[in-house]
Amino acid sequence: MLVHRRKLRIEWGQCDPAGIVFYPQYFIIFDVSTAQLFERTGLAGAAMRAKYGIIGFPLVEAGARYLLPCHFDDAVEIESGVEIWGRSSFTLRHRILKGANEAVVGFEKRIWAAGHPDRGIKPLPVPDEVKAALSDASGKTRLT
Amino acid sequence: MLVHRRKLRIEWGQCDPAGIVFYPQYFIIFDVSTAQLFERTGLAGAAMRAKYGIIGFPLVEAGARYLLPCHFDDAVEIESGVEIWGRSSFTLRHRILKGANEAVVGFEKRIWAAGHPDRGIKPLPVPDEVKAALSDASGKTRLT
Amino acid sequence: MLVHRRKLRIEWGQCDPAGIVFYPQYFIIFDVSTAQLFERTGLAGAAMRAKYGIIGFPLVEAGARYLLPCHFDDAVEIESGVEIWGRSSFTLRHRILKGANEAVVGFEKRIWAAGHPDRGIKPLPVPDEVKAALSDASGKTRLT
Amino acid sequence: MLVHRRKLRIEWGQCDPAGIVFYPQYFIIFDVSTAQLFERTGLAGAAMRAKYGIIGFPLVEAGARYLLPCHFDDAVEIESGVEIWGRSSFTLRHRILKGANEAVVGFEKRIWAAGHPDRGIKPLPVPDEVKAALSDASGKTRLT
Repeated sequence: MLVHRRKLRIEWGQCDPAGIVFYPQYFIIFDVSTAQLFERTGLAGAAMRAKYGIIGFPLVEAGARYLLPCHFDDAVEIESGVEIWGRSSFTLRHRILKGANEAVVGFEKRIWAAGHPDRGIKPLPVPDEVKAALSDASGKTRLT
Repeated sequence: MLVHRRKLRIEWGQCDPAGIVFYPQYFIIFDVSTAQLFERTGLAGAAMRAKYGIIGFPLVEAGARYLLPCHFDDAVEIESGVEIWGRSSFTLRHRILKGANEAVVGFEKRIWAAGHPDRGIKPLPVPDEVKAALSDASGKTRLT
Repeated sequence: MLVHRRKLRIEWGQCDPAGIVFYPQYFIIFDVSTAQLFERTGLAGAAMRAKYGIIGFPLVEAGARYLLPCHFDDAVEIESGVEIWGRSSFTLRHRILKGANEAVVGFEKRIWAAGHPDRGIKPLPVPDEVKAALSDASGKTRLT
Repeated sequence: MLVHRRKLRIEWGQCDPAGIVFYPQYFIIFDVSTAQLFERTGLAGAAMRAKYGIIGFPLVEAGARYLLPCHFDDAVEIESGVEIWGRSSFTLRHRILKGANEAVVGFEKRIWAAGHPDRGIKPLPVPDEVKAALSDASGKTRLT
């Protein structure tokens, strides 16, 4: 599994009057990490959408457990990877770490999807090369 | 169980380039519904925090399943209630409906919490009167 | 000038660790008010975009002055209207009131715009009937 | 003037159904750049608030002009600095660049402020050493 890691400082605008991260913000953090993980294949988000004729990776399910509060200015690290591959769905795991401790753990179950007339969404099989690139821990399998 | 219902039009700024709601926005919708549900007891958010010496209801866990995409301008209804009461924790259920169909179903497990030196959070027992008010489907049990 | 008024309670997630509204949130409030003002013509956002072949009303300029801080739970009222019409541009004024006092005053200068190949934006003349509907203080001039 | 520069990729969740950045997001970008600029003095946001007894830098006024639309995946650079110093207020300039072209230019007029009973805000004089650090283009004048 290819794991994407990024560092983040918790921002003022991500926090609520209790001084801790307003919880929907963690899902925005997950979403950005997912995008950056996919970009590690060598194809940026817009290019990947154009190449494969998809609108993106809409959510089927998402969830998170909040283990430690994160405060303004906290330095955190996010680790993300695709843990489970289905035919047109896949499940990402995200861990937000404060030092060595897990602050938030979560998942996103998404589908590889084209748009559909009448404003719907049509699941498509995830291309094997995409699965391969995101399954290679070395990050050397690239899309072009 | 007291159920809070509210209607919403999906806003432009809640949607992404695929024209559907950016999924973290649903958790913001949940959070607002939770606040409005608690306010149905007769105490607004700031007043409740002041009366009971709490910082709010921080999250322990949250999750959602996305059954139908919601688009810009869609009219939706949100139903919310506390389904499970623990000693200091409680679990809310939220349903977002497009007409008669569920679009999103989700939950928030929260704790009734005071602040704590060193920027932490300290769970407190949920007052019985709060449980009573939110358990009364008629909405007639009031806090003052 | 047609003036749209709506009431709002300041939400937990709109506020920052100082307990006051995180200032970009006011522009989200403006944006929603603009959408609701335009909807007062009888055409919802998606229908208006479809009828006139526009992608929306992208911004040329925006600004706000912050006169009084708004806190969690504050009850505010927002007044919005188009104050200046250009050929393809128009300027909205927004006032956020706490009781009788102005808390925030701002403007949005927008254009009536179609999309354009190469991911650009193409200004179009604002239809006279749209100007007429939004200039009628009585709200009786309707689009269909 | 100390100028802070940072690079950014436009994220999916920052964009609207027209595929361009939802305009309030630019003010979030400004806010983060301001925080990072101040941190260049050697004091992080929480440490600076603690040292000087301030709640932060609330806004008096803000504005932006939108010259070029930014789309999902666009690489942009943000330049930020304090251009004008008052006694307790100061004005930041922000430029968002796509390559060599300005996409957005904006400003934030803020005050150096303590909290105040009755949930208000009290302006304080900006310490000379803070002005000095943010006026030194070399970035070598540090707070401790």
